[in-house]
Amino acid sequence: MTGRTDRLALSLVVEPGDPRVDRLLQSQEPGRVLATIRRGGSEVPPAWRERSVDVEDRVVVATARARTHGLRWVTPGSREWPAALDDLAHVEPVHDAGGAPLGLWVKGAGRLDGLSERSVAVVGARDCTAYGAEVASEISADAADAGVTVISGAAFGIDAAAHRGALALGRPTVAVLACGTDLDYPKAHAALLSRIVEDGLVVSEQPPGQVPTKSRFLSRNRLIAGLAGGTVVVEAAQRSGSLNTLRWADALGRASMAVPGPVSSQQSAGTHRAVREGKAVLVTQGRDVLAELAGLGLVAEPLPGGAGTEFDRLPAEARLVLDTLTWSIAATPAEVASRARLARRETARALALLQRRGLAVPSDTGWFLARRADLA
Amino acid sequence: MTGRTDRLALSLVVEPGDPRVDRLLQSQEPGRVLATIRRGGSEVPPAWRERSVDVEDRVVVATARARTHGLRWVTPGSREWPAALDDLAHVEPVHDAGGAPLGLWVKGAGRLDGLSERSVAVVGARDCTAYGAEVASEISADAADAGVTVISGAAFGIDAAAHRGALALGRPTVAVLACGTDLDYPKAHAALLSRIVEDGLVVSEQPPGQVPTKSRFLSRNRLIAGLAGGTVVVEAAQRSGSLNTLRWADALGRASMAVPGPVSSQQSAGTHRAVREGKAVLVTQGRDVLAELAGLGLVAEPLPGGAGTEFDRLPAEARLVLDTLTWSIAATPAEVASRARLARRETARALALLQRRGLAVPSDTGWFLARRADLA
Repeated sequence: MTGRTDRLALSLVVEPGDPRVDRLLQSQEPGRVLATIRRGGSEVPPAWRERSVDVEDRVVVATARARTHGLRWVTPGSREWPAALDDLAHVEPVHDAGGAPLGLWVKGAGRLDGLSERSVAVVGARDCTAYGAEVASEISADAADAGVTVISGAAFGIDAAAHRGALALGRPTVAVLACGTDLDYPKAHAALLSRIVEDGLVVSEQPPGQVPTKSRFLSRNRLIAGLAGGTVVVEAAQRSGSLNTLRWADALGRASMAVPGPVSSQQSAGTHRAVREGKAVLVTQGRDVLAELAGLGLVAEPLPGGAGTEFDRLPAEARLVLDTLTWSIAATPAEVASRARLARRETARALALLQRRGLAVPSDTGWFLARRADLA
Repeated sequence: MTGRTDRLALSLVVEPGDPRVDRLLQSQEPGRVLATIRRGGSEVPPAWRERSVDVEDRVVVATARARTHGLRWVTPGSREWPAALDDLAHVEPVHDAGGAPLGLWVKGAGRLDGLSERSVAVVGARDCTAYGAEVASEISADAADAGVTVISGAAFGIDAAAHRGALALGRPTVAVLACGTDLDYPKAHAALLSRIVEDGLVVSEQPPGQVPTKSRFLSRNRLIAGLAGGTVVVEAAQRSGSLNTLRWADALGRASMAVPGPVSSQQSAGTHRAVREGKAVLVTQGRDVLAELAGLGLVAEPLPGGAGTEFDRLPAEARLVLDTLTWSIAATPAEVASRARLARRETARALALLQRRGLAVPSDTGWFLARRADLA
């Protein structure tokens, strides 16, 4: 058995994501850990020992199943292995899940290292609101458009909206599952998952055929956070699992971000709380997300400045004029001049400049402030 | 002339809120400053000198007008003077407004020092959304209910909703105007303002008869922030004046707070930005606001803990059971037991406990998580 196969065998004997395995691997080679388990002993959990008895058969079955479904086994040392995942070995377990994965079952045309290098996880509530789904899609589309891979969990709700936001722009996306990557979970997302593997990836630390359980969702969350440069939670109720992903992102020193919503929405209670408690930065749009990733050096180029910066770059007269304009009520040049306390000629010059910069819009009845949509 | 009258006279000669006045007062008595202005000289703005010529007449007119409208002139040294306002003398001017006021024209049955001692400003957009108005009223009602005075600007939109939230509970509220307190501004709020003075206050640094201008709104904002223990902005577009109030609160070391909303709403763009840039703490409800005020020692008693704390205080079984319940889908005790991996008897005991604590609600079809409204 090579290290690769030892890791595969080990993943069929222990529960992937069990932090005890990672601890053992920090002092022993995978083959040695496996041998220890097979020998048994008081410190070896009986379930591990039990499954190790017929581990060779298990490896044969898993490998055959993987071949049938076009899965590959990516391990530390593989060229496709994302180094970012190794950070998981240095973070305290949460909810009995932790450690770097033994390896990942990967399905799809993408390359895991390349796709995850500039990436962001967009996750959230299964029973999201229409508002949440729309924001998730928009943020994901913006990220994808900037060449950032969207990673999510392929679940109903926010996850699906996130994948679809990227796919709508024809950009690859990565789905990390809590079950074997040969299974379509949830079933209703079979078409979504087969679209994802066309140029993206479906990924799991669970062996082929493994079904999802509550604890596997929790350990899956650490992989989403570990693969991505940052995690955005779009909607989450107070105890949502996506807050667990956010916690992992925070523990890993990745960008942890949350989208606000109406305070009356239970689905935003978790994101508001995360922001309030300083566990996440508030983000409202793709540009905010990209700015956070840029702050961690994950997006190379500096981003176009926010409205404030643009405002500050304007000449003083233009700033005075801009301050008098509104979205909703037209102002004649004379009104603008009087409000800005500028001469008519200065006002006209400033309005022309603001129009060129796309900040002011003339109409039959007067001038308006350009809406954000006009600015985009 | 006494210091009180000198201050009154001075407020009729200079523009109240002009930071140059405050600077002069830091080295000279009000009477001396007035004498300097009357003497004229290169350093005295011509407009001040001009108005100082007939200052005695101005004082007579203002005093008569104040008497007619039942206004009183409250100055530093008056028993009713809120010491908190003196902090304004130590903060850099913003937008050409700054300094402690020369005095305040006060109208109403309340006492300014007592009402402002435990207080919070709730301000925001004039053209607010129905969502914003509702949140402003709710937060204000919660604050008022906890004995905290709601201070606002009596403007359309958020301000009016804030005052009304307090008045609906029969609690006094304070309106700070940008014009003389003898004027009803806006006109449409005449009834609101006369309701406010019944047991609260209408306050302004502007002399009787003075009309509001853009710069007076800006200098008024510093008084709102200066009187209140903290400022909550409920809705604000990117350049809303209420962000200016927030900036004052922040500069004064008071609690600066902002309410989130849908990211698609322009009226929440300013609050989101303030939170994102660390200029405000995110708050979603009265309890959050009270917690911030408590953090500054403005609300005496410790507040009831958030959901997290309450959760942590539950026995382990109850926590497991609570985690299986949802707002929307009923679960039978058998389902709960299976999901929580507990025995039926343990489950029944935990459900009963959760019901007693108001955290779980039984129905004909099974158990639900109690909604926040049920918890209140």
